[in-house]
Amino acid sequence: MWLLTSCDLAFDITVPTPFVLMLRPRSGAYQWVAREEYRLAPSVPVFEFTDVYGNLCQRLVAPPGPLTVHTTAKVMTADHLDQTPGAPFVEIQNLPDAVFSYLLPSRYCESDRFGEMATSITAGQLPGYDQVAAIEAWLRTTIHYEPGSSDIPLSAVEINAKQSGVCRDLSHLGIALCRSLCIPAHMVVGYLYGLEPMELHAWFEAFVGGRWYSFDATQAELRGGYVAIGYGRDAADVAIYNQFGPAVYPTIQEVRVQRIEEEDA
Amino acid sequence: MWLLTSCDLAFDITVPTPFVLMLRPRSGAYQWVAREEYRLAPSVPVFEFTDVYGNLCQRLVAPPGPLTVHTTAKVMTADHLDQTPGAPFVEIQNLPDAVFSYLLPSRYCESDRFGEMATSITAGQLPGYDQVAAIEAWLRTTIHYEPGSSDIPLSAVEINAKQSGVCRDLSHLGIALCRSLCIPAHMVVGYLYGLEPMELHAWFEAFVGGRWYSFDATQAELRGGYVAIGYGRDAADVAIYNQFGPAVYPTIQEVRVQRIEEEDA
Amino acid sequence: MWLLTSCDLAFDITVPTPFVLMLRPRSGAYQWVAREEYRLAPSVPVFEFTDVYGNLCQRLVAPPGPLTVHTTAKVMTADHLDQTPGAPFVEIQNLPDAVFSYLLPSRYCESDRFGEMATSITAGQLPGYDQVAAIEAWLRTTIHYEPGSSDIPLSAVEINAKQSGVCRDLSHLGIALCRSLCIPAHMVVGYLYGLEPMELHAWFEAFVGGRWYSFDATQAELRGGYVAIGYGRDAADVAIYNQFGPAVYPTIQEVRVQRIEEEDA
Amino acid sequence: MWLLTSCDLAFDITVPTPFVLMLRPRSGAYQWVAREEYRLAPSVPVFEFTDVYGNLCQRLVAPPGPLTVHTTAKVMTADHLDQTPGAPFVEIQNLPDAVFSYLLPSRYCESDRFGEMATSITAGQLPGYDQVAAIEAWLRTTIHYEPGSSDIPLSAVEINAKQSGVCRDLSHLGIALCRSLCIPAHMVVGYLYGLEPMELHAWFEAFVGGRWYSFDATQAELRGGYVAIGYGRDAADVAIYNQFGPAVYPTIQEVRVQRIEEEDA
Repeated sequence: MWLLTSCDLAFDITVPTPFVLMLRPRSGAYQWVAREEYRLAPSVPVFEFTDVYGNLCQRLVAPPGPLTVHTTAKVMTADHLDQTPGAPFVEIQNLPDAVFSYLLPSRYCESDRFGEMATSITAGQLPGYDQVAAIEAWLRTTIHYEPGSSDIPLSAVEINAKQSGVCRDLSHLGIALCRSLCIPAHMVVGYLYGLEPMELHAWFEAFVGGRWYSFDATQAELRGGYVAIGYGRDAADVAIYNQFGPAVYPTIQEVRVQRIEEEDA
Repeated sequence: MWLLTSCDLAFDITVPTPFVLMLRPRSGAYQWVAREEYRLAPSVPVFEFTDVYGNLCQRLVAPPGPLTVHTTAKVMTADHLDQTPGAPFVEIQNLPDAVFSYLLPSRYCESDRFGEMATSITAGQLPGYDQVAAIEAWLRTTIHYEPGSSDIPLSAVEINAKQSGVCRDLSHLGIALCRSLCIPAHMVVGYLYGLEPMELHAWFEAFVGGRWYSFDATQAELRGGYVAIGYGRDAADVAIYNQFGPAVYPTIQEVRVQRIEEEDA
Repeated sequence: MWLLTSCDLAFDITVPTPFVLMLRPRSGAYQWVAREEYRLAPSVPVFEFTDVYGNLCQRLVAPPGPLTVHTTAKVMTADHLDQTPGAPFVEIQNLPDAVFSYLLPSRYCESDRFGEMATSITAGQLPGYDQVAAIEAWLRTTIHYEPGSSDIPLSAVEINAKQSGVCRDLSHLGIALCRSLCIPAHMVVGYLYGLEPMELHAWFEAFVGGRWYSFDATQAELRGGYVAIGYGRDAADVAIYNQFGPAVYPTIQEVRVQRIEEEDA
Repeated sequence: MWLLTSCDLAFDITVPTPFVLMLRPRSGAYQWVAREEYRLAPSVPVFEFTDVYGNLCQRLVAPPGPLTVHTTAKVMTADHLDQTPGAPFVEIQNLPDAVFSYLLPSRYCESDRFGEMATSITAGQLPGYDQVAAIEAWLRTTIHYEPGSSDIPLSAVEINAKQSGVCRDLSHLGIALCRSLCIPAHMVVGYLYGLEPMELHAWFEAFVGGRWYSFDATQAELRGGYVAIGYGRDAADVAIYNQFGPAVYPTIQEVRVQRIEEEDA
């Protein structure tokens, strides 16, 4: 399906403030960006670089006064997420080198502390896709999903204690559980068509059967309409903005996702 | 200045034909892409990757029939190219590791065969920027510039024998001369506002005084209005399309560059 | 000074066990590896790759039975660590792109939770090197250093609560404090000549004044004799071995560092 | 088999001369470096970096006077090169992104000018491994192999005109022919056990059937005993030394390859 996504951010800046934004979706194996727009006011110099995960990052220093960021993208994405029950576990020795680091614990995914729990949740499952599907199902029924957003990411350990969380938090727990079973997993932030309430979204991907598959415990069932903006080990890597110096919070953060025909817009 | 660039390509495909396109300008130190559009007909799956030079490349297989590619970009670029006479030669041992490979000879820049000639052209110049400026001036007065495009790139040796060439060819000779003096140099393809006749353009950058500077022997004087699409060692790395299998030539290749106000378009 | 380092590991393997080892020091800006040896028994196929931090990693599957790993290196390293009081803080917008990720929180360095504490510890210091030196001094006097090693890394938050830890733990807290002040910091594992008791060591580097400087709160004063094996965001990235499947602990882990003359050994 | 390789170089330096050496074999999919030594006299600072092909490069500035370089390595390598007649051609659209650049022409491999010739040499062969084997056989019977070394690399076009060349030259022609058939090919420099006369060697690898295979037209038949030092697009990328400033030639260049038992040496 074709989607038109947009994200508007506004800040009131009091002292010159360095930002690193991550708001430019890239074309990749599962999505094609046919058009995009990126508007900043005031118009300041921006330097773009590619981080170690392949994400496009925009660096700038915001001068005192209002700062607004407006981005839109017209993206072709899958109508349905691929699902392959039975896709096998990939033995460590057969993992691509580049995938290996997604086995390690990270800031919000303390996978070193979830071995027993993951084994219990996935008891009786075939190693691989079915284990991840069991983790996803367990999250869906066990951890209370609170739609909307929160300012401070919580880690897998914290979410497991709290038993509820936003999309980002559920992903952290899902990722930690996968990694503790030696299944590489990483986080994705982006857009989801039909999400309610509409906000930026987070889900996770696990590497089984030789490729990455998407999982999302916040939705009753997996459908399509996902647009990825950034990939990383967890929320620490894929903040849509990192801001340095005295904390600044957005006065506006507005996200829209609209279904369109290819010819439209 | 703000520019609106566009490139239209059309092909008549007879057998399924793999393409690698390089038609997506990236934001970087010297330009900011505020909007871009990339339209393909028919709508085929496209996989995008980043090559070793940081260029975004689009892979696809064109089915038999007509193939059209339409790309536009709204880009902020400098009004004037930076010029710094006297910027010093960077000693080999102080070059950034990533720059080192631009000292080596490449397909169309046989820098291993231009040592004496480069020394003679730059006699009396301060090592560094002034040597490159002398090479650029020498190209401008010595090699006849033929505006427009050619199908087959010529190498520095060939251009030096022929004493005339298109923008790409002059760049090859300029790059070979720089490298033979141990000055890293690479090729850029992209757009130039005001180019006549309007076509895709090629120029080169040399690394002196700790950064890259642009040079362009095809223009009477350096001004601004450049939009880079791709960087590489020479034309072999920065073809806007590589096509595999039986040769296919564009039936349309149309380039436009228009000056706009920021609010426009 | 010239050092001869060695590390011996032994394991009793019961089921085929994938390992990723990181035991090959690399020559770099601050050390030169003149000789190295890497011996495995039994002799199994090993695949080596470079991770995103530039570390050389060795992948293998250990068959059931004893596994021994013996590595030695003859390395030239500095007699004294560089110290530059007053080296200035690097503004975020001037950081090299590749350094930026060392500002983010990571598994064991929850820098997002140390802002106030770091500000208080470094009150009155010039931004930059002097702040890091103040953090190092604070660690030295505040957190009790327990020589030797521990099996489970503790995070900065945990160490701050416990007020004591091994070298790795002190580094985690130092790194978290630096990052919370927007000073990039990363972890190093390796050897230290004269360490008592002799073991693998960990310290941290901070990026100020345009380069990385080493800091080590476990030593009464900074001297030389450091040999780096691996760099990373924290201990999760630089385990000298990662092992998958049922846990296996080394039956032998023996480290030696000997001072030699260049001609020796 | 286990091999003990060594390379000795000596130069008489008259002015401070920057060098980039490539003399450190790396462990990889097909070889394991169990020990290596790298000795320089005089002992100057060396900075090591990894180039875009993954080769370890050593940068230094040689002071006036004699410079000697001594490297040895103890390496486990295959007794026989893998051969898989019938391994299929990989469609362009299925090539790994990282392999794609080995389809492009390069300094000494003008693959853009060998299409007809390659088609004729490989007439009747199955696309893939068998085409490369036919190219190798054609080189063996057509181009006169001159053992030993030469100072100046020749390109595929030049070798084809001259109909004779050293190992490096034959590889250039083999690579150009493969690429002109859309088969990725790259150059390898290293050691070959039993080579007569003993010298540094060059051969090429082609990507068919989903992996790289080695080919060597200088040997009557493919056997094992190869140790790779460097990989690249052609000889321009894999010089064992690049030297800048007034030309300096080695007064000694001595290579040895000895078969040993694992326990030896």
